[in-house]
Amino acid sequence: MSLQKILLLGSTGSIGTSTIQCVRRFKDSFSVSGMAASRNVDRLIDQIIEFSPSSVYISDPADAKKITDRFGDSIKVYCGESGLESLVNDTDYDILLNAIVGAAGLRSTIAALKRNKKVALANKESLVVGGEYITSLLNQGYGSLVPVDSEHSAILQCLAGVKDSTIESLILTASGGPFRNRSKEDFLSITPADALNHPTWSMGKKITIDSATLMNKGFEVIEAHHLFKLPYKQLRVWIHPQSIIHSLVEFHDGAILAQLGLPDMELPIQYALSYPERLPMHGKRLSLPQIRQLDFFDPDLDRFPCLKLCIDAGTAGGTAPVVVNAANEVAVEAFLENKIAFNDIPGLVAFALDNHQVHPADNLEIIEETDRSVRLTILNKYLSRR
Amino acid sequence: MSLQKILLLGSTGSIGTSTIQCVRRFKDSFSVSGMAASRNVDRLIDQIIEFSPSSVYISDPADAKKITDRFGDSIKVYCGESGLESLVNDTDYDILLNAIVGAAGLRSTIAALKRNKKVALANKESLVVGGEYITSLLNQGYGSLVPVDSEHSAILQCLAGVKDSTIESLILTASGGPFRNRSKEDFLSITPADALNHPTWSMGKKITIDSATLMNKGFEVIEAHHLFKLPYKQLRVWIHPQSIIHSLVEFHDGAILAQLGLPDMELPIQYALSYPERLPMHGKRLSLPQIRQLDFFDPDLDRFPCLKLCIDAGTAGGTAPVVVNAANEVAVEAFLENKIAFNDIPGLVAFALDNHQVHPADNLEIIEETDRSVRLTILNKYLSRR
Repeated sequence: MSLQKILLLGSTGSIGTSTIQCVRRFKDSFSVSGMAASRNVDRLIDQIIEFSPSSVYISDPADAKKITDRFGDSIKVYCGESGLESLVNDTDYDILLNAIVGAAGLRSTIAALKRNKKVALANKESLVVGGEYITSLLNQGYGSLVPVDSEHSAILQCLAGVKDSTIESLILTASGGPFRNRSKEDFLSITPADALNHPTWSMGKKITIDSATLMNKGFEVIEAHHLFKLPYKQLRVWIHPQSIIHSLVEFHDGAILAQLGLPDMELPIQYALSYPERLPMHGKRLSLPQIRQLDFFDPDLDRFPCLKLCIDAGTAGGTAPVVVNAANEVAVEAFLENKIAFNDIPGLVAFALDNHQVHPADNLEIIEETDRSVRLTILNKYLSRR
Repeated sequence: MSLQKILLLGSTGSIGTSTIQCVRRFKDSFSVSGMAASRNVDRLIDQIIEFSPSSVYISDPADAKKITDRFGDSIKVYCGESGLESLVNDTDYDILLNAIVGAAGLRSTIAALKRNKKVALANKESLVVGGEYITSLLNQGYGSLVPVDSEHSAILQCLAGVKDSTIESLILTASGGPFRNRSKEDFLSITPADALNHPTWSMGKKITIDSATLMNKGFEVIEAHHLFKLPYKQLRVWIHPQSIIHSLVEFHDGAILAQLGLPDMELPIQYALSYPERLPMHGKRLSLPQIRQLDFFDPDLDRFPCLKLCIDAGTAGGTAPVVVNAANEVAVEAFLENKIAFNDIPGLVAFALDNHQVHPADNLEIIEETDRSVRLTILNKYLSRR
């Protein structure tokens, strides 16, 4: 493999630091030519010292000045609302690793694809809200997309050497979150602290709540639809509390291939960077006899309606997934601030969909306008309704 | 796929009838140009009526006459000791499906490879006793080998599109047999009826006993060594009572791919015939939520020493696996006739190895001479020792 220059968005977060571990392991294969962080300027400065990127981005202009004061002309520093897109447009890189959280990641993905780059995608919202637009860019021959998520990485690994026509279905696994065994009645008493206590993966607050509602799995189904170009009726979800089988592919002869591993993001990140090659990694190995037991359940759509909301919105297409994503972000924030109950998260999302007329989502303006209008109005509309 | 002519050895057995099901499903892809059965002449006659092969073999000359009387000159009929090899040498076919039980299958595999044919291998003994010789034929460019066994088929399926250098280990699963949970003390009281009661697979007597002792898994480790050209230290066994994960491949980054399916031989047979293509198959689908739970254990080599005997013999190489195979056949037969106890099976095999000087096994004569001499002497030697 020739040296690949990485532009790392979200360098100080959990995906970002795992990516940096991978770069450290393969100094001859990867370098970091640019980095973006939202707030953690001290860690970003440490990373600049270690990797000497040519360009960086940080949200706050005051933080940007800190960096300029320290490193002077040796580094180009971007900040502010449009700074991130400028970083993606101006920096010299081969791979964009997009690990930004939230809808802001979409513009970066699109900008990189338009520059014909490989995008290693850890930003969920890109495909959830921009799936149709991104698919049209890829179909026109712009760039390439490779998933970082462990579930989609598992499917990608199972699909090496496979003919598309032999695929019958893709099966995403889900841990089921902390409330897998809780009765529907007890859902009313769920607190933010309960919901932030995820059984197998250690992640940020927003995605941890999305795991507890299964909204996150719904988003992954939408992503899988776009990544692997299969209709929703060929996509399924199995609950698998141990998170050892990361996902599965079923073939038209009934055979199933699965990818397994310990729950650790370093492997899917490294695979995304080196894809289609597979680089070595030392360290812990999975022993199923040590794990002893793997369990599987069908998802309970009655207790976890968010999964069905996503599949329905994905099937409807156009702006419907944009509405789900925006309403969910508003709902999760309101839940974390104790303004609404856990059950109100799917309630608010369903309410938002009911109050929305679906349009095609084939350009950035309609996506961002839909996102904005839902965010502005939906919480008040929902609360005033009760 | 162009039409592939199959020479089916063992056509009236369980693998044979499943192969015939596959041929029925894909009349445009497969035909049967020859068949061999050992005893079941009535079923063979039905198969001749359905598939009109140009040649057949049956052991007993009296049975052969029955066929000639019925079909006249329209079919060439072989019988007797050398008849099977003549069938393999004279018939026009593309694929030899070798589902003969026992060491007799080796000559057929070698004859077909020497004619540069594709061999779909369900005969265990070919690679267990003839692995080194067959490998040397394949290395010289003679023919090709594809496994029919569900475990090796699983590995082959996981290896599609994989670079050899990325493989860290192959992991074969084993149901553990009916005595998985039985204490070592209680092994003494195991009867043939107990041992013939296999929990997940319905198979012939010999292989069912071999599953109960884990000798069968040991043989599969030896086969995997030859099929996938990996040293024994990169081959492992996990006990998995449900027989749903058929085997796994571990890569050098710690990722594991696994092939899963219901315990049904039709799929691996079809895959072997169509390999590297994957043809469709309707029917039952695996649902892990319906299975609910998969369990895994490390094999207990203290209670099941046959597995270790195989790995040690495989590692020693040469005639050592020939001795294990022959001694085991003698031991299983003696056990089924109540002449020796269940625990005597590994006892007799270990005794045979201790009484044998290992030689290279690079030609058929040394293999068959070793096999013969072990069979003739070992049971009496073992019994007189006690």
